[in-house]
Amino acid sequence: MSFDLGFFQIASIVVAVLAFGTAFWLYKWVEKQPSSNKRVAEVGKLIKDGANTFLKKEYKTLAVFCTCVAVLILLFLPGPIWQGNPLENIIMALSYLLGAVFSGIAGIVGMSIATIANVKAAEAATRGIKPSFMSGYRGGAVMGMAVVGGSLLGVVLVLMVTNNTTALLGFSFGASSLALFAKAGGGIFTKTADISADLVGKVELEIPEDDPRNPAVIADNVGDNVGDCAGMGADLFDSNVASMAAAITMGAGLDRIHGGSVNTATVFCYAAIGLLSSIIGVFTANMKEDGNPTRALNNNTYITTAIYGILTALATFVFDLPWPIWFASTIGLLCGTVIGIASDYFTNDEKKPVHMVAESCEVGPAFTILSGISYGLMSVLPAMIGIGVAALGSYVVAENYMGAGYGMFGISMAAVGMLSIVGMIISNDAYGPIVDNARGLVEMGDLGDKALEITDSLDSAGNTVKAVTKGFSIAAAGLTVIALLGAFISEVNVAALEMGKGEAYLTGFDVTNPLVFFGLIVGAAIPPVFSAMLMLGVDRNAQRMIKEIHRQFKEIVGLKEGKEGVVPEYDKCIEIATEGAIKELIPAGLMAILATLLVGFVGGVQAVGGFITGNIVSGLIFALFMSNSGGLWDNTKKYIEAGNNGGKGSDAHKNGVIGDTVGDPFKDTAGPSINTQITVVSLVASLTSTIFLAFSLFG
Amino acid sequence: MSFDLGFFQIASIVVAVLAFGTAFWLYKWVEKQPSSNKRVAEVGKLIKDGANTFLKKEYKTLAVFCTCVAVLILLFLPGPIWQGNPLENIIMALSYLLGAVFSGIAGIVGMSIATIANVKAAEAATRGIKPSFMSGYRGGAVMGMAVVGGSLLGVVLVLMVTNNTTALLGFSFGASSLALFAKAGGGIFTKTADISADLVGKVELEIPEDDPRNPAVIADNVGDNVGDCAGMGADLFDSNVASMAAAITMGAGLDRIHGGSVNTATVFCYAAIGLLSSIIGVFTANMKEDGNPTRALNNNTYITTAIYGILTALATFVFDLPWPIWFASTIGLLCGTVIGIASDYFTNDEKKPVHMVAESCEVGPAFTILSGISYGLMSVLPAMIGIGVAALGSYVVAENYMGAGYGMFGISMAAVGMLSIVGMIISNDAYGPIVDNARGLVEMGDLGDKALEITDSLDSAGNTVKAVTKGFSIAAAGLTVIALLGAFISEVNVAALEMGKGEAYLTGFDVTNPLVFFGLIVGAAIPPVFSAMLMLGVDRNAQRMIKEIHRQFKEIVGLKEGKEGVVPEYDKCIEIATEGAIKELIPAGLMAILATLLVGFVGGVQAVGGFITGNIVSGLIFALFMSNSGGLWDNTKKYIEAGNNGGKGSDAHKNGVIGDTVGDPFKDTAGPSINTQITVVSLVASLTSTIFLAFSLFG
Repeated sequence: MSFDLGFFQIASIVVAVLAFGTAFWLYKWVEKQPSSNKRVAEVGKLIKDGANTFLKKEYKTLAVFCTCVAVLILLFLPGPIWQGNPLENIIMALSYLLGAVFSGIAGIVGMSIATIANVKAAEAATRGIKPSFMSGYRGGAVMGMAVVGGSLLGVVLVLMVTNNTTALLGFSFGASSLALFAKAGGGIFTKTADISADLVGKVELEIPEDDPRNPAVIADNVGDNVGDCAGMGADLFDSNVASMAAAITMGAGLDRIHGGSVNTATVFCYAAIGLLSSIIGVFTANMKEDGNPTRALNNNTYITTAIYGILTALATFVFDLPWPIWFASTIGLLCGTVIGIASDYFTNDEKKPVHMVAESCEVGPAFTILSGISYGLMSVLPAMIGIGVAALGSYVVAENYMGAGYGMFGISMAAVGMLSIVGMIISNDAYGPIVDNARGLVEMGDLGDKALEITDSLDSAGNTVKAVTKGFSIAAAGLTVIALLGAFISEVNVAALEMGKGEAYLTGFDVTNPLVFFGLIVGAAIPPVFSAMLMLGVDRNAQRMIKEIHRQFKEIVGLKEGKEGVVPEYDKCIEIATEGAIKELIPAGLMAILATLLVGFVGGVQAVGGFITGNIVSGLIFALFMSNSGGLWDNTKKYIEAGNNGGKGSDAHKNGVIGDTVGDPFKDTAGPSINTQITVVSLVASLTSTIFLAFSLFG
Repeated sequence: MSFDLGFFQIASIVVAVLAFGTAFWLYKWVEKQPSSNKRVAEVGKLIKDGANTFLKKEYKTLAVFCTCVAVLILLFLPGPIWQGNPLENIIMALSYLLGAVFSGIAGIVGMSIATIANVKAAEAATRGIKPSFMSGYRGGAVMGMAVVGGSLLGVVLVLMVTNNTTALLGFSFGASSLALFAKAGGGIFTKTADISADLVGKVELEIPEDDPRNPAVIADNVGDNVGDCAGMGADLFDSNVASMAAAITMGAGLDRIHGGSVNTATVFCYAAIGLLSSIIGVFTANMKEDGNPTRALNNNTYITTAIYGILTALATFVFDLPWPIWFASTIGLLCGTVIGIASDYFTNDEKKPVHMVAESCEVGPAFTILSGISYGLMSVLPAMIGIGVAALGSYVVAENYMGAGYGMFGISMAAVGMLSIVGMIISNDAYGPIVDNARGLVEMGDLGDKALEITDSLDSAGNTVKAVTKGFSIAAAGLTVIALLGAFISEVNVAALEMGKGEAYLTGFDVTNPLVFFGLIVGAAIPPVFSAMLMLGVDRNAQRMIKEIHRQFKEIVGLKEGKEGVVPEYDKCIEIATEGAIKELIPAGLMAILATLLVGFVGGVQAVGGFITGNIVSGLIFALFMSNSGGLWDNTKKYIEAGNNGGKGSDAHKNGVIGDTVGDPFKDTAGPSINTQITVVSLVASLTSTIFLAFSLFG
């Protein structure tokens, strides 16, 4: 059968609409689930209101930020508006805004369902593990469908309307801007609340987790949604758009050279099939008789992966698409799975690292930290090798069997392949905060020990799966940004040609070129500094919130004693977390963006190429190290709490809590935000390449 | 005046001999200082014997290791012995052994004087701060002179005898092998002893530091010498040789192309002047009336730097050497100083980071760790920018004003410039463990409170200066390895020409080449894994020693009570530290070497180039982060002990101790060993380049 780009674009739109339909159906399904407990509804409403407070405040700031950036884009990109065609600048600015708005809407939808599904999952827990799991999972899947459907639809629409790949990068940059706020801001919010609630509640006053007397308890529950649900969703929206944008930019470049549109068409075909597989996966998701939620979540992922592999092979055969590209995308998906398994090994409480760290907890807190850091550092190796192999394999297959110039396109298709099951990944991920919240609601609503046990087991599955999905999303971001490096070269060459600098102005980045090396070494220093700024932000913000909690316990009469009718001022804590998050994230984000521009002005496009490369490499290392160390400490604490190495209340447990507190901003603030940071830097670099071509100090 | 390579080589030999003379004179001077206290002499002898135990055991293992490597070199390098000229293989193997032997001798001399000078400094403390300082400083300077004299003499001799730059790389590799054992093994030894002694002594039994009842106290004192004195000396011997080897390899290449020998001559000229400046610096070292040892140490460094700058300018003028190269070497030295100052900022107890971490100590141990890690991560940025600027500046000046091909030579001369004052750096560094030991001897010999106060202040100066010298040595290693990347290309091209692959086979490493990227990403993962392995080694080894200390306190009657005549079995602890150090370091070292070979066999020379680059970049980040975090925590603890944030015995102090315990293996085991790891990897890569040229899977 012969193929046609238009056909695959229309098909993509159809699948995206199908995804929205699925999301709508799931939304209604979750809404229909019974809920009657008044106390649960009350607390549920507090969480919902808190989440809305954060979203409103964040989106207001974002609106200002995005408007400023849009104006800058309008004036300067793709070239100064007074020099080129002003329409191009308008398209660019609009694409940027559209990217931010699409990702924002997906976030709002996801948060909205999450704050409904938590209540439903809590009450369902009184009826059994299966209905509770289904409420949590289908709630998460709404987010998954909205994000992937939205990103695919956005990409298709922008390309069909503008027929301009640079506009696609603009759209991607819009999504990145939002992700930076949602992920880093959400990460600061959630850990501020979590740490403060624990430090005052569990440690100082020795009241249980999720105790309604704690003024920070609602903020803590809101934080789960804000960080893991909205943040992770925006992060993967961003990666997904970026991987498609990079693949389409390079595919379209190849199509221009070789004629036809097979490469661009393949991107849409595979992306649409990925989404379709996720839709099928969501519907087949079910809990077996054994009631093991971890297995249920993982099974979905494997089923979706298999469906994707089979359907893409079939499509490649039927539509006569290039097989090497199919191989490239499959290599990406397989490496993603391997990386997920490696992350699981280093964080799973049935494996050696957790047991070793638990043993260290018996010796002393310093050993808890040292062993956790050490295993976290070791966990970097398998993932890095996996990414390296995926990049090498997909490049070699594409370059050798399709011809010169196809290698980078192969890498971008490996990223697309790795991200193909992203709908499933987000569903699994958003499930986590929903059942975590449900556990809190069961506790606060006094729904009984059986329900608490059920939500505990659902929550623990969420934590285990989270490590895998995080490893996966980091690797995907890594491959995507490598592909963006290719897109950067394309962008520079198009601009260079227009500026009369000749064809193929830029062929690569040689590290023995001192400009490249300079960029490389400075770019590599950015992720550690960025993560340090975020962690110090959490630190400062938590100090503020602790002060507020102390004030409330001191000033509100009867609060500490739990006198009936006395409630803390939950909203004060939510405000502090919200305002602090935004205040602390802006300098870190600006630092990364300004460093990119500065390096560009000093060393030109060569230095920027080195900068992106260094940024990817050290970004991957720190993202993996921090996420895995954090997950490892978290599960070690839980492993000890389950009765090992002295159990709850022992010295080992106390040290385990210290490890977990260190790990919290590692795994939920700094680590996963680095993803977004590297994407933002790459896109800023690609979009501003023309400027550095025209002017730089040494370039 | 016209120049002549032979003249500068002879001059280098003369200066090296002058350095040995200085070392001898200083040795005698220290030996002549009065000492009479029996108890001090007794303990001093225990330390000396302990140090000898370690050295003997280590050198025995090293002898076996180096013999094996030498046999491999004999068989395979520079090419298989059955194919090329066997004489070349013999020269290579002998150069390798010579490098190890020279560095080993310097280590023995340094350790020997250190275990004399500690006794002298302790007793001199009863007479005042100045004589105590001079004993410590001049003892350290013996090591400085021996190391730099030995490295310069070795390089000149090997080059004069063989007239072969590859043999020089062999000599450098020998020095690196020794450094790997001395630095990483010494690092494991010292922290095993330190942590175990503190945990059982200070924490469990609450007996003071350096209490003679503690079975690990002698091992702890030996460890200071083994890690900071012998280890640091071997590390800088290695960097110094590697920087000269890289510069000479590239200089000789340029001389072959352009005729004459001005480039090679310049290397020797500047290196000799560097050593000469250090000799002058050692003699002018003195303590002012204010008795501020930190200022005295820093003043020496500044004086030496100034002398070097003036003398090299003079020499450049008189001998008509190329000015751009003078600029390159001066940029290197200046950037080294800036990096030292930045390290100082992040670790000095008069600056903001220490105060902020001390405040975090009041909140809880998790905050101590989080803030220390955050500032450590931030400290990476100025140093990385400094290295980037040094590399870019020296390259641009050399390339623009001397012509194509001179850029990399410029970078190598920046490294030579940065390392020019290495004699002074080592002297300052070796001073540290001597006065640290002296403090212990004063305590154990009951020499009175005034002497304790004096040695305390000398010790504290040693710690402050250590942060600066560490930053300096890490930066120097970084620049050196960048230069080695240039040497690697030269080596490959020479081999490629011989193999008929044409001229200029390799021109650089393009990161968009998937082989380079694969190497880059895997190479970047090695330093974190290497440091994790060393830290886990310390952890395991400390557990063993703690068990032994517990056994002694249980089985030796009267030990805990301090009954007269009852002494612990110090040697048992020394044995455990020694054997454990060697056992734990070998897997880490092998991992790094095997990874290099594996990447080479998979991806050929392109992948190896990427591998080295990734290794440098992430190696620098982790070395800086770990050294600075560790120094920061150490000084925070001391700052609190000085009466701030609650002072000794407060909760903040307890948390400060936890931070310091985490920081110990960071700053004294893992961090500084990474230096050596990156040098070893680069040299292994350069030496085996021919093999990968002949065979690789994808290359």
